[in-house]
Amino acid sequence: MAAWAERLTGVRGVLLDISGVLCDSSASGATAIAGSVEAVARLKQSPLKVRFCTNESQKSLRELVGVLQQLGFDISEEEVTAPAPATCQILKERGLRPHLLIHEGVRSEFDDIDMSNPNCVVIADAGEAFSYQNMNRAFQVLMELENPVLISLGKGRYYKETSGLMLDVGGYMKALEYACGIKAEVVGKPSPEFFKSALQAIGVEAHQAIMIGDDIVGDVGGAQQCGMRALQVRTGKFRPGDEHHPEVQADGYVDNLAEAVDLLLKYTDK
Amino acid sequence: MAAWAERLTGVRGVLLDISGVLCDSSASGATAIAGSVEAVARLKQSPLKVRFCTNESQKSLRELVGVLQQLGFDISEEEVTAPAPATCQILKERGLRPHLLIHEGVRSEFDDIDMSNPNCVVIADAGEAFSYQNMNRAFQVLMELENPVLISLGKGRYYKETSGLMLDVGGYMKALEYACGIKAEVVGKPSPEFFKSALQAIGVEAHQAIMIGDDIVGDVGGAQQCGMRALQVRTGKFRPGDEHHPEVQADGYVDNLAEAVDLLLKYTDK
Repeated sequence: MAAWAERLTGVRGVLLDISGVLCDSSASGATAIAGSVEAVARLKQSPLKVRFCTNESQKSLRELVGVLQQLGFDISEEEVTAPAPATCQILKERGLRPHLLIHEGVRSEFDDIDMSNPNCVVIADAGEAFSYQNMNRAFQVLMELENPVLISLGKGRYYKETSGLMLDVGGYMKALEYACGIKAEVVGKPSPEFFKSALQAIGVEAHQAIMIGDDIVGDVGGAQQCGMRALQVRTGKFRPGDEHHPEVQADGYVDNLAEAVDLLLKYTDK
Repeated sequence: MAAWAERLTGVRGVLLDISGVLCDSSASGATAIAGSVEAVARLKQSPLKVRFCTNESQKSLRELVGVLQQLGFDISEEEVTAPAPATCQILKERGLRPHLLIHEGVRSEFDDIDMSNPNCVVIADAGEAFSYQNMNRAFQVLMELENPVLISLGKGRYYKETSGLMLDVGGYMKALEYACGIKAEVVGKPSPEFFKSALQAIGVEAHQAIMIGDDIVGDVGGAQQCGMRALQVRTGKFRPGDEHHPEVQADGYVDNLAEAVDLLLKYTDK
């Protein structure tokens, strides 16, 4: 692999995943990953443009940012690209009235959305709300529609809580796709539109940007398919096998966000 | 389409799906589909060989047959090819110790199976037991295995109860496949091994056999891929769009089992 200087040349903007990069989550709350609070602060003091790009869909943006601020992170709602607000924009633009299969924590994002007589289904990382009954209801709504529309907030395979690996929304999206014979629209990583909207927000071109995430497929592979570079951190849901993934190779593997920021500050153009 | 006489020529054996062909199910029990009790009786009095071939995995074989006998059907356990007994045979042959994600009603089938220290996961149509917690546990067991083995009792998309369409095991199989990055082994229709074992039991070759089912993909498409002919009944989970399915065309569509048997008795060789 080329030297870091070469791999990081021309980087002007950084997209940061949140869960597994900034913090670890558990049922009882979130904890900052060692060195990440300082790493974000140093990055934001540098000339590099920074944007947070998350698939978090169990919490509202306000709650998510509140939790991170509590942990000491320098972050505001305006700096985050998240799937629920992006979904609401799509629903309004297309006149879609959703049946929601989501976590209670994110429901407030949909407060001003018309949900009468649903003509689409929106699913997110619903956690315990992924009961058979709720899945079956979403399935039935889709099967009753002439042109079934399923919007999925991300399509992550799993995430890591301190108690272990947890099923993410992706599998449930696949279940509904299969049962209904349809294809979901993904709002969130690795959707190119989602990455592009994050880049637009900081005015950086894909070839000048680097994604830092813990998901080899959703973060690293997705960003690379958009023409960005991407680093994988060995925190969060990282598993050793990721470094020999059959389809995706990161532009670099680092122990954590602190090491990534060390390298970025050392090797990107001043 | 060719005349019935031509389409049915040389048929010597009949495989009958159960749910949606013989009976409809609901939370409170099962009801015989009009004409089906008599149709089965007439078929069994004819020279045609008959075998029941079901993906039922919420009930033990004993309970299933008991329910059908109660409804008046001439059927015995020895005449049914069902996925749970077939799975137990596979588990024993391969030294597999399953973690089960199944309906309580079928658990007795696994009474003599070693389930200590699981080295595979078996899922079936678990109904309400498809909770997030149970799915997550199955996922975690698979992720902890070096060579994860997932066995799915069928891969149906949905079935019909009197209250409406219900998600079947297939979607949940897809969810685990996606989350774990693996491919499940299907025991049940449309697995060719499963159809073949049903044919072997009655000593009939595929080209001499016809499947009668309500599932255009699992019953009709699966049987045709094994070299059998197949009829779809317009009962059970049948939907009008099935007659214009993009990939599968049945050798004939009939209103119900009674009509299928009328045709078979009229046009197959005496």
